[in-house]
Amino acid sequence: MSYWLFYWPGLQGRGEFVRLALEEAGAPYRDVAREADGADAMTALLSGPGPHPPFAPPVLRDGDVLVAQTAAILLYLGPRHGLVGAGEAERIWTHQIQLTIADAVTEVHDTHHPVATGLYYEDQKPEAARRAEDVCRSRIPKFLGWFERVLAANPSGPDWLAGDRLSYADLSLFQLVAGLRYAFPKAAARALDATPHVAALHDRVSERPRIAAYLASDRRQPFNEQGIFRRYPELDFG
Amino acid sequence: MSYWLFYWPGLQGRGEFVRLALEEAGAPYRDVAREADGADAMTALLSGPGPHPPFAPPVLRDGDVLVAQTAAILLYLGPRHGLVGAGEAERIWTHQIQLTIADAVTEVHDTHHPVATGLYYEDQKPEAARRAEDVCRSRIPKFLGWFERVLAANPSGPDWLAGDRLSYADLSLFQLVAGLRYAFPKAAARALDATPHVAALHDRVSERPRIAAYLASDRRQPFNEQGIFRRYPELDFG
Repeated sequence: MSYWLFYWPGLQGRGEFVRLALEEAGAPYRDVAREADGADAMTALLSGPGPHPPFAPPVLRDGDVLVAQTAAILLYLGPRHGLVGAGEAERIWTHQIQLTIADAVTEVHDTHHPVATGLYYEDQKPEAARRAEDVCRSRIPKFLGWFERVLAANPSGPDWLAGDRLSYADLSLFQLVAGLRYAFPKAAARALDATPHVAALHDRVSERPRIAAYLASDRRQPFNEQGIFRRYPELDFG
Repeated sequence: MSYWLFYWPGLQGRGEFVRLALEEAGAPYRDVAREADGADAMTALLSGPGPHPPFAPPVLRDGDVLVAQTAAILLYLGPRHGLVGAGEAERIWTHQIQLTIADAVTEVHDTHHPVATGLYYEDQKPEAARRAEDVCRSRIPKFLGWFERVLAANPSGPDWLAGDRLSYADLSLFQLVAGLRYAFPKAAARALDATPHVAALHDRVSERPRIAAYLASDRRQPFNEQGIFRRYPELDFG
């Protein structure tokens, strides 16, 4: 049986964290966003009946089960596909890392939407410049510095965030690093110079056979200015 | 054995979502923030050694286990104290709701800190007014409307968010409603007029014997202008 992934068409967005997990797992999935009526299917799902209405995409459908919220989807997929270690302590630690990645993603999103998601970037450019300066100069180094510390403190070595094997959190950190490099080339380069374990983890993930194949395929949409990570040079405070 | 809860002294903050769970469970816990050296203990924990450094508080210590990230702490506590239903489907749904509450909490926080957490509110007042107007007029009604829909769609009835019993998500929604009423009395009243199941859930939680006792005790700190929910009348767009 195949998963269904619902997300908005035309952007990686938060759906990409789920795609990376499904791709690494080699799990069959239907990416509804890439079908002709993907946007309509998404809208219908959000407004449809059922006991578990999603607040927002991404949404994973697994038979009768609907799961929304990126971190909850990964919590659901992890044990099914070997994307998290065994044992409660390692699973809760992996999830804690994932929630911190989610916080970083929200802060990056709000660099271009500090006032309202419902407004265009062009309607909040002065506010965006102030927020982006803080995110580039303070928050990105702080988040990446914490991931560096987590990797350095891992008793199994600095290859992976939790334990001695890849987890969904590693896939998400890869995506965060890739997105930061796209959106803020100067600020990301500076922060990554100080966090070599994080930079190496990005490369290690990108070389996984299934991830490398995915990144080279047309299933991997390019970054663009509709997603979370947007390249507005005036917001790159390097 | 007693839990230790680490958080900043002098405010409810995100620690309050954990306190409510511990109080409802009747679980013994040491609230380190309320001890004489609480702030120093918090700082030492964040910078200390160990394989699982917290990024930010709240942090729960259970023997040798450290868990940070509010939603991860509740994921950990839920099954131990009957604060979540049995079965994976109900647990992942409860967690999905909790993550949506967390998103709402972040958006409320950013009404007074839309530019940078490291700056004072006074240094970002124009940006705060723009963001708060959107949050009051659009986001609070949207979030509370979704919780209303979840309650109305619950096959077990509209008393609780998930299943036929109280979960940690109900405790957190109580706190969100209480905080919104403190911070935005006009906007919250308007939104809650349209979401009667949500308003009733708030009251139902507040009448739980252990929660009522907690709220009447000096362990419940008052809302204030150091927390997430701050009463700045100029930000209450009713």
